[in-house]
Amino acid sequence: MANLLMMNELTNAEIFQILEDAENYKRGFGWNPSEKLFVSNLFFEPSTRTRFSFEVAEKRLGLEVLNFTAEHSSVQKGETLYDTIRTLESIGADAVVIRHHEDYYFNELRDKVSIPIINAGDGCGHHPTQSLLDLLTIKQEFGSFQGLTISIHGDIRHSRVARSNAEVLSRLGAKILFSGPKEWQDPFNSYGEYVDVEEAIAVSDVVMLLRIQHERHEEKSSSNNYLQEYGLNLQREKLMKKDAIIMHPAPVNRDVEIDSQLIECERSRIFKQMENGVFARMAVLKRALQQIEQNQEGNTHVIYS
Amino acid sequence: MANLLMMNELTNAEIFQILEDAENYKRGFGWNPSEKLFVSNLFFEPSTRTRFSFEVAEKRLGLEVLNFTAEHSSVQKGETLYDTIRTLESIGADAVVIRHHEDYYFNELRDKVSIPIINAGDGCGHHPTQSLLDLLTIKQEFGSFQGLTISIHGDIRHSRVARSNAEVLSRLGAKILFSGPKEWQDPFNSYGEYVDVEEAIAVSDVVMLLRIQHERHEEKSSSNNYLQEYGLNLQREKLMKKDAIIMHPAPVNRDVEIDSQLIECERSRIFKQMENGVFARMAVLKRALQQIEQNQEGNTHVIYS
Amino acid sequence: MANLLMMNELTNAEIFQILEDAENYKRGFGWNPSEKLFVSNLFFEPSTRTRFSFEVAEKRLGLEVLNFTAEHSSVQKGETLYDTIRTLESIGADAVVIRHHEDYYFNELRDKVSIPIINAGDGCGHHPTQSLLDLLTIKQEFGSFQGLTISIHGDIRHSRVARSNAEVLSRLGAKILFSGPKEWQDPFNSYGEYVDVEEAIAVSDVVMLLRIQHERHEEKSSSNNYLQEYGLNLQREKLMKKDAIIMHPAPVNRDVEIDSQLIECERSRIFKQMENGVFARMAVLKRALQQIEQNQEGNTHVIYS
Repeated sequence: MANLLMMNELTNAEIFQILEDAENYKRGFGWNPSEKLFVSNLFFEPSTRTRFSFEVAEKRLGLEVLNFTAEHSSVQKGETLYDTIRTLESIGADAVVIRHHEDYYFNELRDKVSIPIINAGDGCGHHPTQSLLDLLTIKQEFGSFQGLTISIHGDIRHSRVARSNAEVLSRLGAKILFSGPKEWQDPFNSYGEYVDVEEAIAVSDVVMLLRIQHERHEEKSSSNNYLQEYGLNLQREKLMKKDAIIMHPAPVNRDVEIDSQLIECERSRIFKQMENGVFARMAVLKRALQQIEQNQEGNTHVIYS
Repeated sequence: MANLLMMNELTNAEIFQILEDAENYKRGFGWNPSEKLFVSNLFFEPSTRTRFSFEVAEKRLGLEVLNFTAEHSSVQKGETLYDTIRTLESIGADAVVIRHHEDYYFNELRDKVSIPIINAGDGCGHHPTQSLLDLLTIKQEFGSFQGLTISIHGDIRHSRVARSNAEVLSRLGAKILFSGPKEWQDPFNSYGEYVDVEEAIAVSDVVMLLRIQHERHEEKSSSNNYLQEYGLNLQREKLMKKDAIIMHPAPVNRDVEIDSQLIECERSRIFKQMENGVFARMAVLKRALQQIEQNQEGNTHVIYS
Repeated sequence: MANLLMMNELTNAEIFQILEDAENYKRGFGWNPSEKLFVSNLFFEPSTRTRFSFEVAEKRLGLEVLNFTAEHSSVQKGETLYDTIRTLESIGADAVVIRHHEDYYFNELRDKVSIPIINAGDGCGHHPTQSLLDLLTIKQEFGSFQGLTISIHGDIRHSRVARSNAEVLSRLGAKILFSGPKEWQDPFNSYGEYVDVEEAIAVSDVVMLLRIQHERHEEKSSSNNYLQEYGLNLQREKLMKKDAIIMHPAPVNRDVEIDSQLIECERSRIFKQMENGVFARMAVLKRALQQIEQNQEGNTHVIYS
């Protein structure tokens, strides 16, 4: 079952295969299903980038899309996530893409449903397709991960992205640095050390900013002036290495994590990351569905006796 | 006009035609429109199964789908249901699928709009496509309805399904039994008699459980332990005849109408019902649209002078 | 960049081209894209007609549709309209259709995003596709605009339609009259003079009623009986010229702007306007996208370096 739940379940070889497939899709090549396949997108949290990026990826692949919204569904009548997914499976979904506010929501599903689950974000936990599109963006830029220094800035503790990226980038040979307010350090994330913001910026090939997730935590940062204390302001950008790039998963809090004037500057890959997201997700969908199509013989993909 | 509003408006011959068409779609055959046709789904109540089942059916048929949600529509500005449907008709909908909280909402529409209306549930009234998928499931199992004993358990009074099914199954030759709390008996439903739960289960070929619709009625069941008093628990399942099956329209209240462990047991057809729902709805859409396509000559289906 | 923001930015020649293209689409001819193009519909206000009319137009043209709703998006996390549109652009939208409650919301977007923007209504400002479908309906009826008398009735001040239509119809050679309660006169709209309702109706070729937008203004009309004082009731309809027609952008407040019995009478073009809306929007989408397709070489339409 080609689930995609957490980056740490992918081997390096699998990651490089996905990145290669993504590059091919970007160049206009790659697998398309030969028959009508259905994917259902279940977003239990608001999203623009991830949701539409998946929808575009699905439609570019020629898949049929079922957009599920919790408030118009039987979740309103108390139906569980498991029963919802089993229902979609029975109705004909060939894969599901899920964003859910609970950490590890997928643990109650894996090994129990027979269609692949693609995790589009669980609570503060994981967001593997964001990691993949980040990897794609870095690989396009530098060709390899070996020996790169990548600093991750900001709200490490609440970030789905920080955790996945730190693990996988370390594994692929990059050196990770963290920087940000003390109260947002993550004691469980041991893939890099915490350094001063300017020190981090000066030595990095990639300055990876994180979004401050106001919607996830009560405690405000101790700082009333995050940009000047911890963010990427105009002065700090000048410290960056010649070919270093800026990344941010967006949505950006303008003039908080980054000065508004830098969002579309020459170093910024913020919108390129979004563009890459479509290709990375096409590759992930291919991985999930290609196998299903091979296993399939009849017209409907699952027959309950 | 091939509306589908209430099961009692279908002749036996029409029902058998729909079931045959559904079987054909299940096997991968059947009518597909030769031109672009549009269907609009209007769900004024939350739904997972029925809504997505229709959407999958529509997309398998190659129809274009317009998903209408009341809260993003001019219903917010006070537009009536009639004006909404006439609008969709003018814009190019070739058929509409409607779920609405009002009993007989369709009476103000029939004979006034010129596109077919498919009732996906009206208040506590009717739910004909649920009946059709139930019939399909029973026919697949037993080949015929003649002589079967079918017991319907639970909230008879508030159930769209109980009413339609009792009428049509009686008509097709089955014997109906009802069972459940006294306060949920339906004085207007005279298609079967009320018997004790264990008596019903022991003699039935089909044990048809109904969902307790907490969202529809204020009065709680007098019972704090519905499963033990009226539901299908593990002990009662043992009373069932050798080849008898369990049905439930879902969503299931786990451990209320049925013990959680029985939901996916060998006797259960609960997820098979959902799977059949797609094929039954494809057949209903065929019935609604095939005729339209034949009547059509020009490019737009209705011309207002 | 083939934006469509306000009618006053279109030359007469452009308007006539759109009307001709719309007529062709109505007859079943016209441009279709040769590759997969994506359009995103962003409706920040409830809408039935405009939203579905665009969706049908897009699907008739074979476009891929991305339906954006603010409450499921990162707008919930404070993302700006500009960042939202740039995101959709990066993800692959080839054009956006926007309805937004703010007057001139598009001023912060134009010249900054590189995909065409089609305005589906801004605040109390403009609604160019409504004007175009109105023009199409009038042209079908009378062949030309030159010399026609067109009276616009009702809530002139809050109407997106009144402003656009008065400007463009004057420009195309029609004479405009206004009629309605004093408190809803628009001092900035100088394209016609205010006359008594019966005088207006008696001399008009087109009686164009406006919707009372209860949802937009606090002040009630001074009248408790709008229909009798200012509306088109049965008596006033009898004053109309032999071939004069009735128009209304809908949704109609039945028995307020117009007697219920007149909504589908022989003179009424209310539902025909909706039907024409699809063809007018197809023509507008063609104008926006045809050029893009010509400019495109690679597989993705915008490459950020």
